[in-house]
Amino acid sequence: MPELADWIAVDWGTSNLRAWVFGPDQAVIARLGSDRGMGSLAPDAFEAALLDLIAPHLGDDPVPVICCGMVGARQGWQEAAYVTVPCAPPGAGQATVVTASDKRIAPMILPGMQQGTPADVMRGEETQIAGFIAQHPDFDGVLCLPGTHTKWARISAAEVVSFRTFMTGELFALLSGKSVLRHSVQTPDWDEAAFAEAVGDALGAPQNLASRLFGLRAETLVNDMPAGAARARLSGLLIGLELAGARPYWLGQRIAVIGDPALSALYETALGHQAVPVERADGDAMTLAGLRAAYESWKGNRT
Amino acid sequence: MPELADWIAVDWGTSNLRAWVFGPDQAVIARLGSDRGMGSLAPDAFEAALLDLIAPHLGDDPVPVICCGMVGARQGWQEAAYVTVPCAPPGAGQATVVTASDKRIAPMILPGMQQGTPADVMRGEETQIAGFIAQHPDFDGVLCLPGTHTKWARISAAEVVSFRTFMTGELFALLSGKSVLRHSVQTPDWDEAAFAEAVGDALGAPQNLASRLFGLRAETLVNDMPAGAARARLSGLLIGLELAGARPYWLGQRIAVIGDPALSALYETALGHQAVPVERADGDAMTLAGLRAAYESWKGNRT
Repeated sequence: MPELADWIAVDWGTSNLRAWVFGPDQAVIARLGSDRGMGSLAPDAFEAALLDLIAPHLGDDPVPVICCGMVGARQGWQEAAYVTVPCAPPGAGQATVVTASDKRIAPMILPGMQQGTPADVMRGEETQIAGFIAQHPDFDGVLCLPGTHTKWARISAAEVVSFRTFMTGELFALLSGKSVLRHSVQTPDWDEAAFAEAVGDALGAPQNLASRLFGLRAETLVNDMPAGAARARLSGLLIGLELAGARPYWLGQRIAVIGDPALSALYETALGHQAVPVERADGDAMTLAGLRAAYESWKGNRT
Repeated sequence: MPELADWIAVDWGTSNLRAWVFGPDQAVIARLGSDRGMGSLAPDAFEAALLDLIAPHLGDDPVPVICCGMVGARQGWQEAAYVTVPCAPPGAGQATVVTASDKRIAPMILPGMQQGTPADVMRGEETQIAGFIAQHPDFDGVLCLPGTHTKWARISAAEVVSFRTFMTGELFALLSGKSVLRHSVQTPDWDEAAFAEAVGDALGAPQNLASRLFGLRAETLVNDMPAGAARARLSGLLIGLELAGARPYWLGQRIAVIGDPALSALYETALGHQAVPVERADGDAMTLAGLRAAYESWKGNRT
């Protein structure tokens, strides 16, 4: 018989739902997941999607379920309105409490963060930032969270001072999967030197992005550029463009990169070529640390 | 009964097939089209797709069918190998002659143009350029051909000296149709001031493209930016980025824009804000003029 949960951490994004079930001794007793992301669910379908996953771990008493991510968007389960920077990443005190039909769960949703000028938003990354700050309370510097919509955030005195989002990951997905370049980059191969050169090209002349993109196709047709070089170069051009735009964030700053290890390694390499050393933290670990910090503060406030 | 063709002009792109049937007095007696573009046809299906369209206009004698566009790509009907710049746009003398099964047609395919360094290719635009040069034999300046893959070409002494392609149109289609921005730009509305401002923003700081793109989504969520402003701004950011990269092409040059009238008007506006006046020529008219020039030179060589 499955162990019963003390509390449950949930990262509920657009495409995926992931849950970590914690036992009474605060060890993770189950890691669960499904593809029932926020993007595929109507508001009245969230509770069932969650219960399908976690029901075996529920007893008679209501279990706190701390959620972060797009589940709190306007089109999600219930809106968790953004908090506005500069401020600390939101904790349990700012969470939206959801009244579930099933009394075995007590869900709450952590808000995202927004910025007025320039307008910007995040949902999910604020919890990773909260996790990082919980582990590094004295960090003063900049966090880079690479992904579909990469975030750069200035952190000082345990607050997010400002942040900026770059569509780098989504551009890579669209260009490599749905543009004319898809014919040129379909390969598991990777040319590290081509990546580094492209980062430098984009940093040096970001205005040439749209012609350099087509150049990948042309190099394939005219000069038989290998797919591994084209793929690495596409990634390098986009990350280099981002670094050119994010320069005010990383120049002369202490930098930590939080994210998927393979993607974070690309940012570490690219920043390394600019002589910028970076610390690294795993994205999932920071999500979990952020949700755990929220749980602990919620529990602390109750007792 | 349909009039018989003297010759037939064909613009055969990736998505569409278009044909103009000329009578003995060189007037267009039929404009035909189908969606059987090169992208959807196996090599042995091209002849039938063409005959389905033009058969009513064929008599006993073989009719010259002059084709341009992706029909001449490696995956097309028959490859028409690129000519390499600097050179004049290819004419009938460089066309690939196709041996058709049906002896009522004598098809030929005009080659595209390529450039070695930086690598670049065009297929279809070279015929528009040929048409423009046929009508303006003394033109010395730069042609801009906006589209999915916008071309900028330096013209001197009736030759293409060099050219560069920008993926601007494809980026707009992907971002407005398939990215997170699709929620923000779905409208027929258009904010002309937002377009002009975005062109200036991108020209002034092209490195900020990826953050400004996400900013459109954020402005929608945080500041209720209207869709007509977001759509115009998306277009302006991409055209502005292109103009930043194409500056060596347009700065201090005589410029003519060849293309779809609505799209050409955007380029005229954007360049106008940089105090660059442009001439305009209709894209279809230039395609037809280029195919006609090829036909006339073919006919001249035969007699």
